[in-house]
Amino acid sequence: MSHMDILLKNGIILTMDRANSIIKNGCLGIVGDSIAFLGEETHQLQADKIIDANGGIILPGLINGHTHAAMSLFRGLADDLPLMEWLNNYIFPVERRMDGDFVYTGTMLSCAEMIMSGTTTFCDMYLFEEEVARAASHAQLRCIVGEVLYDFPSPCYGILENGFKYTESLINKWHNHPLVSIAVEPHSLFTCSPELLVAANQMAARYNVPLIIHVAETLQELAEIRKKYGVKPIKHMKSLGLLGPRLIADHCVHIDEADLATMAEYGVKIIHNPESNMKLASGIAPVHKMLSKGITVGLGTDGCASNNDLDMFTEMDMASKLQKIQTMDPTVMDAVTVLRMATIEGAKALGIGHKTGSLEAGKKADVIVVDTNKPHLTPMYNPYSHIVYSASGRDVVHTIINGKLVMEARHLLTIDIEEVMERATEKSLYVKQWLSQ
Amino acid sequence: MSHMDILLKNGIILTMDRANSIIKNGCLGIVGDSIAFLGEETHQLQADKIIDANGGIILPGLINGHTHAAMSLFRGLADDLPLMEWLNNYIFPVERRMDGDFVYTGTMLSCAEMIMSGTTTFCDMYLFEEEVARAASHAQLRCIVGEVLYDFPSPCYGILENGFKYTESLINKWHNHPLVSIAVEPHSLFTCSPELLVAANQMAARYNVPLIIHVAETLQELAEIRKKYGVKPIKHMKSLGLLGPRLIADHCVHIDEADLATMAEYGVKIIHNPESNMKLASGIAPVHKMLSKGITVGLGTDGCASNNDLDMFTEMDMASKLQKIQTMDPTVMDAVTVLRMATIEGAKALGIGHKTGSLEAGKKADVIVVDTNKPHLTPMYNPYSHIVYSASGRDVVHTIINGKLVMEARHLLTIDIEEVMERATEKSLYVKQWLSQ
Repeated sequence: MSHMDILLKNGIILTMDRANSIIKNGCLGIVGDSIAFLGEETHQLQADKIIDANGGIILPGLINGHTHAAMSLFRGLADDLPLMEWLNNYIFPVERRMDGDFVYTGTMLSCAEMIMSGTTTFCDMYLFEEEVARAASHAQLRCIVGEVLYDFPSPCYGILENGFKYTESLINKWHNHPLVSIAVEPHSLFTCSPELLVAANQMAARYNVPLIIHVAETLQELAEIRKKYGVKPIKHMKSLGLLGPRLIADHCVHIDEADLATMAEYGVKIIHNPESNMKLASGIAPVHKMLSKGITVGLGTDGCASNNDLDMFTEMDMASKLQKIQTMDPTVMDAVTVLRMATIEGAKALGIGHKTGSLEAGKKADVIVVDTNKPHLTPMYNPYSHIVYSASGRDVVHTIINGKLVMEARHLLTIDIEEVMERATEKSLYVKQWLSQ
Repeated sequence: MSHMDILLKNGIILTMDRANSIIKNGCLGIVGDSIAFLGEETHQLQADKIIDANGGIILPGLINGHTHAAMSLFRGLADDLPLMEWLNNYIFPVERRMDGDFVYTGTMLSCAEMIMSGTTTFCDMYLFEEEVARAASHAQLRCIVGEVLYDFPSPCYGILENGFKYTESLINKWHNHPLVSIAVEPHSLFTCSPELLVAANQMAARYNVPLIIHVAETLQELAEIRKKYGVKPIKHMKSLGLLGPRLIADHCVHIDEADLATMAEYGVKIIHNPESNMKLASGIAPVHKMLSKGITVGLGTDGCASNNDLDMFTEMDMASKLQKIQTMDPTVMDAVTVLRMATIEGAKALGIGHKTGSLEAGKKADVIVVDTNKPHLTPMYNPYSHIVYSASGRDVVHTIINGKLVMEARHLLTIDIEEVMERATEKSLYVKQWLSQ
């Protein structure tokens, strides 16, 4: 008789393994940080902690493949504006004034929102990333974080040379942390010189960490790259030697078939951010074509200033419906495909598919439970459909990360949420003050 | 000192009146079925029941302008399919077998979901609408319902002649009901003969009730109407004398500038259903053009089989983002515009703008409270932004319809939800059985 630390029982398990196996009356046992048992209900197992899923759905924690967590402090600050007005009059002036404590607070707020909406891993690009790593480690979320690098001075590290040093110190400091890992993250092709990009790629290669960058998000970006370098983004990146399986390209909205063929050839990964692309009117990424080329595509929310939430459930819904309307084909991006993008394919895109993204014995225990005993999730013909088209993050009832229960029955166990919300509101008063000056 | 039946206090009131007035530290008093007081917090008022909004947002109950409520029993039954396969292999075979009790159960389930997600009025088109009216009156939701009329025999009333009689009996029976009113509802131009349409319009005129119909939802429909009548849908309707302020046209996806000019000229109302149009890959309705022509446009979820929920909050989010991406302009369909569509403009579209859709003294008290004391709604710079882009129906904490509290602190007061969910699950077993035969 095996003994488990945590035993989840009485749920429909969507494993998201290679065969998309479903275990109907399922039971999942955790020992330490890992999944030790997965199968039909059994009386052979004992556990210190038993969690009854109450007939709900047990699935892998969701993977938010691209966000700027601390931007939760800008949620609703400025909507419905032209991109440059939004950036120049709101986002940049505030970012110039903020500090590490601001980023820590915003990230903790986002960690709370992510845990409460079933996200167990996020990939972050922002300023003061040491604070992001600290917040995530305190909240006990899995994450890949990286300091944003660009040609102009940063409010965090000053001149670029220090940005590389900052990144290197992050890599050294968080090496071997069970939850936090580091990436090298140049901002974009239009804010980073070819020299910066090449140096970033070299550093990523030297430390064997991901290289993460915004690519082909807007038409303005394409025009700018064409003007500067005479080519389209993917060609520019290819000429700099950036393409490869280590590269994670965020957005990829304005990408043609030839670009996709090149990206597939080099094993580049893509993170799709439908809600942000819609809200900023950036364009519609050709996700169905990416998938048909065999490219690994994950899903991200982008920051809260352009979404305006971190709910991966509504992101899945939007991702599916947006592709259907773009292709005028209701069969594309079916529920299983989209849920895979938000779980195992997202994990693979971030290079952590061996650790998380599916429920399989031996993998890290990143697990969520959705309560389906609600009018909007009744009756249940198809659990995949419910997860993608009907559920929201608010239906997640328990969240487990790396074997640790971080939310039980909607109560956060690693975050003092009242204190975090109070501090977030305090920070918002500074934001208003900075903008009124 | 005035005495109120219910007093809502300590909230930010979004009145959605003509000036979109906001009352910051607001207080709303209800006497009987109506709003009696609206203003800053005051100690001059007493009340039998005091509800503390706890710093949250108080706004008009949302108006779901087009749905098929009982189709909640088909939620997730068949997704990601071509339209005709979905209809012919799933929806139609089940609809042929269902009865009044099936429709009552599905409607009660939807009433629960609507109340829990802040919808206080819905407009329904389906079969066995007497049961829809009964369910809504039991649940105490405001609604406009009408029996669907088409050329082929109906599982509810048999031959068409009886469909008109059924509609007439609904009109007579529910006349003067405080919550339920009746419309005449021919299904569409491709399922209804010109004679049916003209007779339906005459009946609507005779009883002074709305005429509601699906229009220009798909390209197939346009092709069929062109083949049969040699014209586009709006021209066909014009030639039959159907256009006028009584007409509510659902969908209007494939509508050009000339059509819109005609519709504006005749005062036709439109209900936009973005999630359904996306999920079925029907197309993108030109809502920004409708608005610029001065047409009254409401928002609807359509049925749960093509959405797959009745949450008007996510519908608002989708409506805004879909127009932004279609026009490649982030400034269109800003949060206030979209919230007006889901409240006062929706009410006007249904012809009940004098009764509901905004919070103004003398209007019926259809009011909801959103709890903003949550990580995903913190900090708050702009309450409109939070409602449209960040909140979901699950953030609604209290719902009042016609002066009556129907949900308090997420507890339904007019529906035995456990019983309804149990009955809904029983009905789903019949559906599976019917489809396997």
